[in-house]
Amino acid sequence: MEKNFKVLWLVLFPLLIFSGITCVSRINKAPEIDPGFCMECHQRVTPGLFQSWVESKHARKGVQCMTCHIDHEAATQQKSMVFPEKCGACHSKQLEEYRKSRHSIAFDRMRIQGEYLGIPQEIRTAFCERCHIVQKRCNSCHTSHRFSLKEAKDPEACGSCHLGPDHPHKEMYETSLHGTIYKLTQDPDRAPRCVTCHMPKGTHDSSFGIARGPVGTRPSVVDLKEVPISPEEEKRRREEMLGVCITCHSRRFAQEQLENADQVKEEAFKLQDKAKEVIQGVEKEGLLYPSLADRSPHPTEGKQLVLGDPQLYIGTSQIERLFFTMFKFHNIRVWKSGYHFSPAYIHGHGWSEMQMDLIHIQDEANKVRELFGGKKK
Amino acid sequence: MEKNFKVLWLVLFPLLIFSGITCVSRINKAPEIDPGFCMECHQRVTPGLFQSWVESKHARKGVQCMTCHIDHEAATQQKSMVFPEKCGACHSKQLEEYRKSRHSIAFDRMRIQGEYLGIPQEIRTAFCERCHIVQKRCNSCHTSHRFSLKEAKDPEACGSCHLGPDHPHKEMYETSLHGTIYKLTQDPDRAPRCVTCHMPKGTHDSSFGIARGPVGTRPSVVDLKEVPISPEEEKRRREEMLGVCITCHSRRFAQEQLENADQVKEEAFKLQDKAKEVIQGVEKEGLLYPSLADRSPHPTEGKQLVLGDPQLYIGTSQIERLFFTMFKFHNIRVWKSGYHFSPAYIHGHGWSEMQMDLIHIQDEANKVRELFGGKKK
Amino acid sequence: MEKNFKVLWLVLFPLLIFSGITCVSRINKAPEIDPGFCMECHQRVTPGLFQSWVESKHARKGVQCMTCHIDHEAATQQKSMVFPEKCGACHSKQLEEYRKSRHSIAFDRMRIQGEYLGIPQEIRTAFCERCHIVQKRCNSCHTSHRFSLKEAKDPEACGSCHLGPDHPHKEMYETSLHGTIYKLTQDPDRAPRCVTCHMPKGTHDSSFGIARGPVGTRPSVVDLKEVPISPEEEKRRREEMLGVCITCHSRRFAQEQLENADQVKEEAFKLQDKAKEVIQGVEKEGLLYPSLADRSPHPTEGKQLVLGDPQLYIGTSQIERLFFTMFKFHNIRVWKSGYHFSPAYIHGHGWSEMQMDLIHIQDEANKVRELFGGKKK
Repeated sequence: MEKNFKVLWLVLFPLLIFSGITCVSRINKAPEIDPGFCMECHQRVTPGLFQSWVESKHARKGVQCMTCHIDHEAATQQKSMVFPEKCGACHSKQLEEYRKSRHSIAFDRMRIQGEYLGIPQEIRTAFCERCHIVQKRCNSCHTSHRFSLKEAKDPEACGSCHLGPDHPHKEMYETSLHGTIYKLTQDPDRAPRCVTCHMPKGTHDSSFGIARGPVGTRPSVVDLKEVPISPEEEKRRREEMLGVCITCHSRRFAQEQLENADQVKEEAFKLQDKAKEVIQGVEKEGLLYPSLADRSPHPTEGKQLVLGDPQLYIGTSQIERLFFTMFKFHNIRVWKSGYHFSPAYIHGHGWSEMQMDLIHIQDEANKVRELFGGKKK
Repeated sequence: MEKNFKVLWLVLFPLLIFSGITCVSRINKAPEIDPGFCMECHQRVTPGLFQSWVESKHARKGVQCMTCHIDHEAATQQKSMVFPEKCGACHSKQLEEYRKSRHSIAFDRMRIQGEYLGIPQEIRTAFCERCHIVQKRCNSCHTSHRFSLKEAKDPEACGSCHLGPDHPHKEMYETSLHGTIYKLTQDPDRAPRCVTCHMPKGTHDSSFGIARGPVGTRPSVVDLKEVPISPEEEKRRREEMLGVCITCHSRRFAQEQLENADQVKEEAFKLQDKAKEVIQGVEKEGLLYPSLADRSPHPTEGKQLVLGDPQLYIGTSQIERLFFTMFKFHNIRVWKSGYHFSPAYIHGHGWSEMQMDLIHIQDEANKVRELFGGKKK
Repeated sequence: MEKNFKVLWLVLFPLLIFSGITCVSRINKAPEIDPGFCMECHQRVTPGLFQSWVESKHARKGVQCMTCHIDHEAATQQKSMVFPEKCGACHSKQLEEYRKSRHSIAFDRMRIQGEYLGIPQEIRTAFCERCHIVQKRCNSCHTSHRFSLKEAKDPEACGSCHLGPDHPHKEMYETSLHGTIYKLTQDPDRAPRCVTCHMPKGTHDSSFGIARGPVGTRPSVVDLKEVPISPEEEKRRREEMLGVCITCHSRRFAQEQLENADQVKEEAFKLQDKAKEVIQGVEKEGLLYPSLADRSPHPTEGKQLVLGDPQLYIGTSQIERLFFTMFKFHNIRVWKSGYHFSPAYIHGHGWSEMQMDLIHIQDEANKVRELFGGKKK
């Protein structure tokens, strides 16, 4: 009888684990876990934080508050941020790979960007810095204090920064068949997630394969130092990418899709250039209001006409403002959706908007010429 | 042997329950549940409705159709709506708390609002009333006839009304780290849901902590009677709110975040005021088309210039229409996102749009002056 | 003892199946499944594709690559697309029903549409054709090579095409109470999915009940040959639809909701007509820039003014462009949301936008008259 019981448990125990019963992990403190000096108290004062940590692999492996935050005294006095170098002490491979990615220069690049320089500090804090901090915090993706691999690999994690009108990667992915099937099945073998293509085999160099220039507003592909990459390097990366696609698709099909995206990108930039020319014409005729002379200089480019990155949306003329949405929102949606296979973002949210931007810009040029042009003659 | 079987079942039965096997709850009629007079027939004619009810706690506790709808005869002749007072007969604590919330005055407030008065009845029915009915129906959140607590507490339930261009609470939450982690984990201990902060410990007074004025278009915080609250009361509410934040975050961090949001709000209203001034200038010069004299009076404010709540989007001049989207859509996104920690909504969908609104409004002022200004001289 | 073990397994085996443990289906090749000629190799070269297939009902029933793709030689040389006729060899009932639906003419209709004719081929490939290919590919919905019924019936599957600014069915559904409750519960008995109303009882004639004209831009309901249906037929379809609604709702309630939607639709088209009149006036006065004479003729309508379907968004005047977004994006949202019960899309994304479009169009008419009108006199 006793033996039967043993057999029963031999079978039931793994079953309990597999069945997704979470009650086991929900006891407030696993018996083998030492809460350490801080958590003895923090399990009362910040129970949510404690609960996240106690369920983490860190807790099981004995990684406690002070392993990362160093010193309880210091942590209570000042911000106790943990920098990638600290994480790298244990996760050295990941740190090394991450340093090859644009993530590792995100904060520095932000700080010299015209857009950042042109807005109040509280907006910077609440917007720009909240994402660009990825240069300083591994927990941008590996959310504290659970540090769950499952969470970090989910499209939602990437999408908490890669979203919105100027880089709607999340929205494009979610409206592609890839994203649709993943959402439906939650099965990374059934459809790719962001990390499948951008961080294959767990590499932390997220510029694998197809990573492009600064928020994708320039036509050429650049490296970490903003230098356009060579055609050979571009070809090598395309091959890398195809290596991922052919897990599910035929090489011919995958290649066709990517090459079509290349052409979509070209068309989008051609359309943008048409609008650019119209505005350059208006500027030459002295019909920008306010004129370049009459407005604050651009924080990095000075008193010249900036069309495209790093153009600002503050204090410009109406016609430049129209161009801002064309290059920053609509063009990006067209060409990036080309590579993310979202019909809705390529066209409805992208290409048709660009065409309508062009009509609007041309019309605006006509109107300012008619209205103000006479005065210059 | 027989004993072994018993042991087996003692272990297996709870396992079956925990394993999320829904087939048990899917029998069409649980043996102990009395369908009552109506359901005897309704399980045939409205099987979906019956199924929802039979799976509810109400059914298990003997709460039948007539417990709430009173009279079968009446219910077949006329709308058989059940009002909060009826629910309160059993759920008195909840009713009492709910009466302190803005939910309990939502329909009355809607009916005297300019926006409501200015649109056709069918649009009112399909839009305004569908949400503001929360004053009259607990099943706005506790969807009938399942009345599932799990459903009512999910962000989706709140988000069925709190969404869209003029109050995108759902969108802000979903694009914040809070919303992202909750979506990923479905674990309310891992990340807050709407109810975590706005209805802590199950209170039905949803104006807990940080509730603000009418759809957030006014800079000051008001109480149930639209009276701005005192600085002391505001401070008390901030403390309430912080009490929730510090479950997971350090007090210092939480306070910094909320104070940054306060400043974001101030900046947004400053920007809006700049636009207001421009339009007031245009109006003084008699350059609004149609002019205030030439158009239908505002349903509640008469023939005066209304900029900001309760401004309408019907039959105004173009420049006022531009202001409408600035104050009603973009400003709200900026400042509410400040408190909901959504970078994308603060900036991409908010702050940058407000700056572009301002350019557009200033440009429109220039154009109407040039076009029509001469005639007045 | 051995007997006990048997008993144990008799109980445990179905439990394992029910518990949602997917590991069983994740072995790389189920023992009874014959991979066939192609898959012997493809399980190495395209493991993702193989994995999808091996988990499909097709694999279990012996449907191999060549059953559908006919010939390995041919499939490696050219595109090995499988057309509905091939699927119909086994699924004849589904094919027959599908042929009554607009899905079965989607590609042909696209190819004669002005919008399609007016854009570059790469945009057509990446946008239009990706969805309209439903005429040629059952795997538009039944995604290859898993062909899961669960996936095909999910709103996500429909939503991979039925989304975006010009037909946001997905967005409307997701923001309705129907969609909200389904998302929350994932239970098709608790709330309807797309297929519940549009493909009841699994019919593949998706024009069941309430299907309307070409992307809903015309006020009348048309049949497969674009002929407006008779009032009797319309009445019959309404009855069909009500037959679905009353599974959960009272007939009176359902009828009221649909009739309110009818009125919402009427109001929206009235508003659109007002804008149309304004633009027709401007055109008669010769104030469109570019004029009809000065621009490329419309691909199907020639040199006439097209307001509403199949109007283009390329190379028109600004005032026509304003009308484009009004009729194509905003009006559709209003009236289709009426039938999909999404307050946010009826009003915030729809009705208020239409009203603002009208202000903008009237203002544009004033401006072009003032600016350019004198020259014509």
